[in-house]
Amino acid sequence: MNDARNAIERLVALLSRLPGVGKKSAGRMAYHILDADPAYARMLAEELAGFHAAIHRCSICGSFTETDPCPVCSDPGRDSSIICVVERAQDVRVIEESFGNGTSTEFRGLFHVLGGLIAPLDGVGPDKLSIGQLLSRIRSGAVKELILALNPTIEGDTTALYLQKILKDYPVEVSRLASGLPVGGDLEYADRLTLSRSFRGRIKV
Amino acid sequence: MNDARNAIERLVALLSRLPGVGKKSAGRMAYHILDADPAYARMLAEELAGFHAAIHRCSICGSFTETDPCPVCSDPGRDSSIICVVERAQDVRVIEESFGNGTSTEFRGLFHVLGGLIAPLDGVGPDKLSIGQLLSRIRSGAVKELILALNPTIEGDTTALYLQKILKDYPVEVSRLASGLPVGGDLEYADRLTLSRSFRGRIKV
Repeated sequence: MNDARNAIERLVALLSRLPGVGKKSAGRMAYHILDADPAYARMLAEELAGFHAAIHRCSICGSFTETDPCPVCSDPGRDSSIICVVERAQDVRVIEESFGNGTSTEFRGLFHVLGGLIAPLDGVGPDKLSIGQLLSRIRSGAVKELILALNPTIEGDTTALYLQKILKDYPVEVSRLASGLPVGGDLEYADRLTLSRSFRGRIKV
Repeated sequence: MNDARNAIERLVALLSRLPGVGKKSAGRMAYHILDADPAYARMLAEELAGFHAAIHRCSICGSFTETDPCPVCSDPGRDSSIICVVERAQDVRVIEESFGNGTSTEFRGLFHVLGGLIAPLDGVGPDKLSIGQLLSRIRSGAVKELILALNPTIEGDTTALYLQKILKDYPVEVSRLASGLPVGGDLEYADRLTLSRSFRGRIKV
């Protein structure tokens, strides 16, 4: 902790390793922390110190949780016949936050975190993902529908295709999130691929 | 520290109090920290825990420092006849970083941190700023020039005018940083006031 640089530069160097934080914003953050009540830095330090120890992977769905199974998997009010398959644990949080933690009608099912996407160029094959666990959840449970909530990227498409193929022999319905124009977006700024998907996925009104 | 929300939400809430960090980027940061080596969270926690205790105000210039006087004030290689007057301690860092910590020819003088700008509407009068200390530095030392490096805002202008007035009786030259178009900027995007300043401050070529 005590190298030659001073405390401000050390904190700036650490903060600028956070995503989306450059050296300038890390500097602003450090001075903001200095100007703020010391209790703030203390609380942040405490949370960070205990962060990794407090958070585990849910043994059922693979999302980050403090309890095992996670609150979603252990909630009897959730519809266990629908599983939403996501790439990363943070995707669970995005969906839960958007839909009011399962209280909205949009999605009240469970989750499954793949832990990545198939990316042959990066050496990530299907064996690196938690597909085996997903299949045993399907086999053992009353799962009727799988919603693939994978990013509309080459890796997401590849993984979705792979899952569709191996899931053909299982009695589950498989769907994928619609891809198209973002709400509030402008045709003018849509790229060709997004536009083409929004045409192919057009909905009768 | 242990309220009902889980560790991720508590960290997200704390991180989103940082400047320029919304709830979404705080979430990305929290998951980044989870994915990273636990040593990173530990180092960040340690720096934050000791941060306020390590940093003091320099008793001469008022900037943040671990030693007193600060490295700039105690550097015999700096030109003590020039003092650059700034609003906040972080401005010292910006100028030092830009000019290679006094190794460039642009600025090799000392600093004085006012600790704010005159803002009558916010109840900040000249008495709230370290103007008395600045005057005694001028009286006791061999100060020949003051560079007012205050933001080109109403508060910065007011403070600069006030300083110019009270410094009239002192044998020091007072200047202010040039205001005008940013380098690499475009006339098209300059606001009227900036453009008008760049006209008034035009330089013969």
